[in-house]
Amino acid sequence: MHEPGKEDILAAAERIRPYLHRTPVLTSEILNEITGAELYFKCENFQKAGAFKSRGATNAVFSLNRDELKRGVATHSSGNHAAALARAAQLKQIPAYIVMPENSSKVKIEAVKHYGGHITFCVPTLEAREETLKQVLSQTHAFEIHPYNNYSIIAGQATAALELLEEKPGLDLMIAPVGGGGLLSGTALACHYFAPGTKVIAAEPSGADDAFQSFGQNKFIPSVNPDTIADGLRTSLGSLTFPIIQRLVQHIITVDDQTTIEAMKLVWERMKIIIEPSSAVALAIVLKNKHIFMGKKTGIIISGGNVDLMHLPWV
Amino acid sequence: MHEPGKEDILAAAERIRPYLHRTPVLTSEILNEITGAELYFKCENFQKAGAFKSRGATNAVFSLNRDELKRGVATHSSGNHAAALARAAQLKQIPAYIVMPENSSKVKIEAVKHYGGHITFCVPTLEAREETLKQVLSQTHAFEIHPYNNYSIIAGQATAALELLEEKPGLDLMIAPVGGGGLLSGTALACHYFAPGTKVIAAEPSGADDAFQSFGQNKFIPSVNPDTIADGLRTSLGSLTFPIIQRLVQHIITVDDQTTIEAMKLVWERMKIIIEPSSAVALAIVLKNKHIFMGKKTGIIISGGNVDLMHLPWV
Repeated sequence: MHEPGKEDILAAAERIRPYLHRTPVLTSEILNEITGAELYFKCENFQKAGAFKSRGATNAVFSLNRDELKRGVATHSSGNHAAALARAAQLKQIPAYIVMPENSSKVKIEAVKHYGGHITFCVPTLEAREETLKQVLSQTHAFEIHPYNNYSIIAGQATAALELLEEKPGLDLMIAPVGGGGLLSGTALACHYFAPGTKVIAAEPSGADDAFQSFGQNKFIPSVNPDTIADGLRTSLGSLTFPIIQRLVQHIITVDDQTTIEAMKLVWERMKIIIEPSSAVALAIVLKNKHIFMGKKTGIIISGGNVDLMHLPWV
Repeated sequence: MHEPGKEDILAAAERIRPYLHRTPVLTSEILNEITGAELYFKCENFQKAGAFKSRGATNAVFSLNRDELKRGVATHSSGNHAAALARAAQLKQIPAYIVMPENSSKVKIEAVKHYGGHITFCVPTLEAREETLKQVLSQTHAFEIHPYNNYSIIAGQATAALELLEEKPGLDLMIAPVGGGGLLSGTALACHYFAPGTKVIAAEPSGADDAFQSFGQNKFIPSVNPDTIADGLRTSLGSLTFPIIQRLVQHIITVDDQTTIEAMKLVWERMKIIIEPSSAVALAIVLKNKHIFMGKKTGIIISGGNVDLMHLPWV
C-alpha cells in the first residue's frame, strides 16, 4: 500500500464506521480560562477498547483480502494496540495472535482475553518480543499488523482528526501526542487534506524525546531507555511515520512528566473524564507554552483512557 | 410556594436553561452485558459545579423577587449545594453566605470561593451548623435556601429527569439516589407528570438507611450516625420531600458500600467518566438486584462527579 491519500482516509472512515464510536468533542470553560486558548478535545478515551488504536486496527483488519484474513493476524504489544487488534479480529471471526511481555498490566491482559486474543507471553525486552513474534508468525503464518508502521493503521488513526475537523472546522492548531507516530502522522495527513490551514503540533514527554530529536536533526534517532509516565509514548518512530511527520508537522514540543500529571489531574477534576498519561501530554504542552495557544482554536486528540486505577500518578 | 406541578417543572427548566448544561445521556454496552438491563445514564457529573445541585440552586435563586434578591442568599452545606448556590448567586450578582464545617474538603472550599461565596466556618456538628447559619441570617437578613427542603429546589432537581425522559421516552424504571430527598422527589414528580408509566426506584446506602426505614414504616425517622462512603447521602429526609417520596416512589433499595465502590470503579474503568460514590449507589443496586432490572429500560441519574482524587476508596 502507498502513503494514505485523501481517498484512503475517507475510505477508512467509511470502512470502520459500523464498528466504532463516533466519539464526542468536549470543551471546558474552565480549561479555556486557565490556558487562554479555545480547546476542543476529541475524546478517544470513549472509543471502543478505550483508545484510538481501535481505528487503525479495525481499518487494517477490514482491509485484508480473503486469503490474508484466513491466516489470522499477529502483533506484539503490551498496550492498547493489543486489545484493539484482538477486537477487530473477533469482529471478522479470525484469530489474533498477540505477543505480550509477561509484566504487562493485568487489565491489558484481561482486555485481550476478553476479545478472544491468543496470547503468547515473553520476557519484557524488545528483542524477546520481536523474536517471539517471529516464532509465532512462522508457526501460524498469520499476517503481521504492526502497531504504527503500517499505512492501513495510519489511515485508520487519521479518522479521529477527520471527525474533529468535520465537527469543528476552522481550527488554528491541532495537537496529537507522539510515540511511534501512527496517530501523529494520521492526524497530520488529515489536516493536510481536509484543513490545510490547521497547523499540527506534536506533544512528546521530555523523558522520551526521540521524535523531537529526530525531527530537529532530520534523521532517525531511536528511543533508548525512555523514562516517562506516558507508557504509550515510549516507542521509536517508524520508517513510514517519520517521513510524514517531517513533511507535515509544524513543531514537536516536549514536556516534563510533572506537568503531564498536573494536566491529567486537571482533566479528571474539571472535565470529569478519565484520560491516560499519554493523552495528558497534549494538554501539558499547552499549560507550559500558553503564548503559542493564546486565543487559538486548538484541537486536541485525547488518545485513550486506559489507566490503572490502583496506581494513580498523583497519589 | 406549593408542591411543584407540571407547569412549575417546565418553568424551572425554562428558567435555568441559559445557565446550565444539558448533560448527555450515556450508555455502555459492557454495563448492559454485565447487568442484563438497558441502562441510560443521565450524567449530572458533567453539570456546572459538578453536580445536579446547580439545577435546584439556580432555579431557587432565579425564582426570588427583587426584594428577596437584595438580601442575598444563605445556606449551610459541606457539599455540592454550597458551590451550586454560590454560583447561582454570582450569576445574579447577589451575595451568597455559606456556612461550612471547618473540616470540609479543600476542593469544596475552593469551589465556593471560586464562585465568590462568603464562607463562615463552624464546628462540624449539625447543631453548630444550624446555630451559625441562624447568626448569619440575623446579621445579613439573607434569604435561606435549604439544600432540599424547598419546593423551588425540588422543581429544579426535577429537570434532570425531565431531560432524560425527553431524550429517552418509554423508560420502564428510573433510579435516583436518596439523601435529603431533593433529587429523588424531583425525579418522582417528573416521572409522575411526564412519564406515568416509568416507575421510580430509590437507591440508598445501607449505612444511612433512614429513607428506607421512614418509607417502610410510614413515619419520619431521622438519619443518626450515618456510616457510608456516599457523603452526599447522609442527611435526613425533609418535611417537604418525604410526602412526595411516600406517594410517588415505588421502592427504596439499600446497598452496602462495598458494592457501591465496585460500581464506582466499574463506571470509571468502563465508561471512562468520573462519578462520586453517591452516584454509584444507583448502579450498585442494579448489580445486587439483577432480577428487578433484567431486560428493563432503566434511567439512572448520575448525581455528580466531585471526588477527592487523592483518596480513592479502592486504593
